[in-house]
Amino acid sequence: MGAYVPSVELIARVQRGEPAAIGRLISRAESGLAEARGALAQIHKLAGGAHVVGMTGVPGSGKSTLVSLLSQRLRAGGDKVGVIAIDPSSPYSGGSILGDRIRMSDLSADPGVYIRSMATHGATGGMARAALEAVDILDAAGFGVIILETVGVGQDEVEIVRASHTTVVVSAPGLGDEVQAIKAGLLEIADIHVVSKCDRSDANRTLTDLKQMLALGAGGQEPSGWAIPVVGTSAVSGEGIDELLGAVARHRDLTTNTDAGLARRQSIAEFRLRKTAENLLYDRFNAAAASASAKLAEQLMRRESDPYSLAEELLSTTLEGEGDHERDVHSKSA
Amino acid sequence: MGAYVPSVELIARVQRGEPAAIGRLISRAESGLAEARGALAQIHKLAGGAHVVGMTGVPGSGKSTLVSLLSQRLRAGGDKVGVIAIDPSSPYSGGSILGDRIRMSDLSADPGVYIRSMATHGATGGMARAALEAVDILDAAGFGVIILETVGVGQDEVEIVRASHTTVVVSAPGLGDEVQAIKAGLLEIADIHVVSKCDRSDANRTLTDLKQMLALGAGGQEPSGWAIPVVGTSAVSGEGIDELLGAVARHRDLTTNTDAGLARRQSIAEFRLRKTAENLLYDRFNAAAASASAKLAEQLMRRESDPYSLAEELLSTTLEGEGDHERDVHSKSA
Repeated sequence: MGAYVPSVELIARVQRGEPAAIGRLISRAESGLAEARGALAQIHKLAGGAHVVGMTGVPGSGKSTLVSLLSQRLRAGGDKVGVIAIDPSSPYSGGSILGDRIRMSDLSADPGVYIRSMATHGATGGMARAALEAVDILDAAGFGVIILETVGVGQDEVEIVRASHTTVVVSAPGLGDEVQAIKAGLLEIADIHVVSKCDRSDANRTLTDLKQMLALGAGGQEPSGWAIPVVGTSAVSGEGIDELLGAVARHRDLTTNTDAGLARRQSIAEFRLRKTAENLLYDRFNAAAASASAKLAEQLMRRESDPYSLAEELLSTTLEGEGDHERDVHSKSA
Repeated sequence: MGAYVPSVELIARVQRGEPAAIGRLISRAESGLAEARGALAQIHKLAGGAHVVGMTGVPGSGKSTLVSLLSQRLRAGGDKVGVIAIDPSSPYSGGSILGDRIRMSDLSADPGVYIRSMATHGATGGMARAALEAVDILDAAGFGVIILETVGVGQDEVEIVRASHTTVVVSAPGLGDEVQAIKAGLLEIADIHVVSKCDRSDANRTLTDLKQMLALGAGGQEPSGWAIPVVGTSAVSGEGIDELLGAVARHRDLTTNTDAGLARRQSIAEFRLRKTAENLLYDRFNAAAASASAKLAEQLMRRESDPYSLAEELLSTTLEGEGDHERDVHSKSA
């Protein structure tokens, strides 16, 4: 890990775009430790210039390949490109499963591209808080476009992708029924739809279905006047990547310095504020609850009391420190 | 919806196993409304006899078909069988996507089988709280085996399945890389492994891989002495269903009246207590935060302050009611 680098130095190095400093500060954000908060608060004030693109899709939709292609093309156009990929994580070991992805290694020698996998584990609100702090860090480091990628299953994963300026939802032809059902929950959050694997013969059907769904009024025209495009792409032929980049650029224009863009940024800020507050609240609750909960859980297991009464007891015990210290620790609140 | 049924009457009807009463009380649990808590606390005291089987697997693993087959076979053996299926939900409309599943409709005329889909949306801790309350309700209604089914993606979904007496993880041959990576996070929570679709020619490979992984010490032998079985099943031929039922029965014996079983029940109770407390805490926080957060979010959006300072301000404002009412509402806590 190397010697501890003071925050002031780390922030200066992040601003110069040094990958090692960026990685170290993101790790501090992920840790959720209180010591990191001062630096992250400062980074927040330095950020705000980047365009954040959220990308999600069901497992097997090929979104990771698409992120890789997009990053290469954006980089070739002169942008510094950051990628924050939220990977499913092991509930026991806590590690990110997909790791630092081999598929993107051809980009990794270029300091103008920064790729980071983050694991989904952690306390309530912690994943969203850390991911948006990582976005700030890349933003402060001068990355003009930041792609926030998640697998499109799980409430937290979907919420995070909505906390971006432009949300891209990736579909693919030929997935099973269950996967299609999961996909249905994602369709309504898209600013731009992509159908990947368009070299396949069954892709046309998927394109047609999506366009029909949009035409039927399930979100085809937003209040802002944005007509949600459906772009077919192929990682094999490279088809559609330029069209997708064009759509992202048009959506960026639409959401910059407009009422619609302001409303979007306000809702992202509300989401972030909530998640940060949730995370702080839970850190406190869990630290205090660890000692009290075993005894209460035993009462619950023996059915000597019910979950609500015991939860109230746990809350009144653990949240005492937040308020009146004189109150009887064992009293139940209403 | 019909006339409002008082809790006392509803509880009596649940105990008689009336499907309409069971459904109504589960809906009250899902709503999270304070009015339902008294009835759910009483139901908790009536429950405790059922064996709860958690089933999970990646999208496309065929676990829903397997749950259907298992339910039929258990029912044929004389057990009343309840199924709580946590479905991915639409983040906007809030509705459950898979709905009340058509595939299981052949079972639905029998009052000895109860199937309920629950959506994943809702406040922090709410899904786990409601699902475990639904388990209690079916338990109090005399269902001897309750299957708790979730899609194996997303931290909440995986955690809930672990809150069962016996956890079954379903794998399938021939899924893509990304799906396999997600699967890796599930493998370590299994008490029993199933490889579905064993009529396929590539299933042997999946079976062999799993057995090798277990032999290599990645959880093959638990401290309790339980050797994790790997069962191949086929919905086409019916192969392996009896073997799976046998494995579930053996694991049930192992975890009844043993130290290992007691430890498992204690950890389930701790999980439940935490989730219920989290949910109560968040209900309060969110109710109070709704009015305060818009103004603070605007300050965040304009980068006039940072997420941590504003989150502290939001917490101190909203949690005032929990403690000292005399404190200045706008003061920041340390």
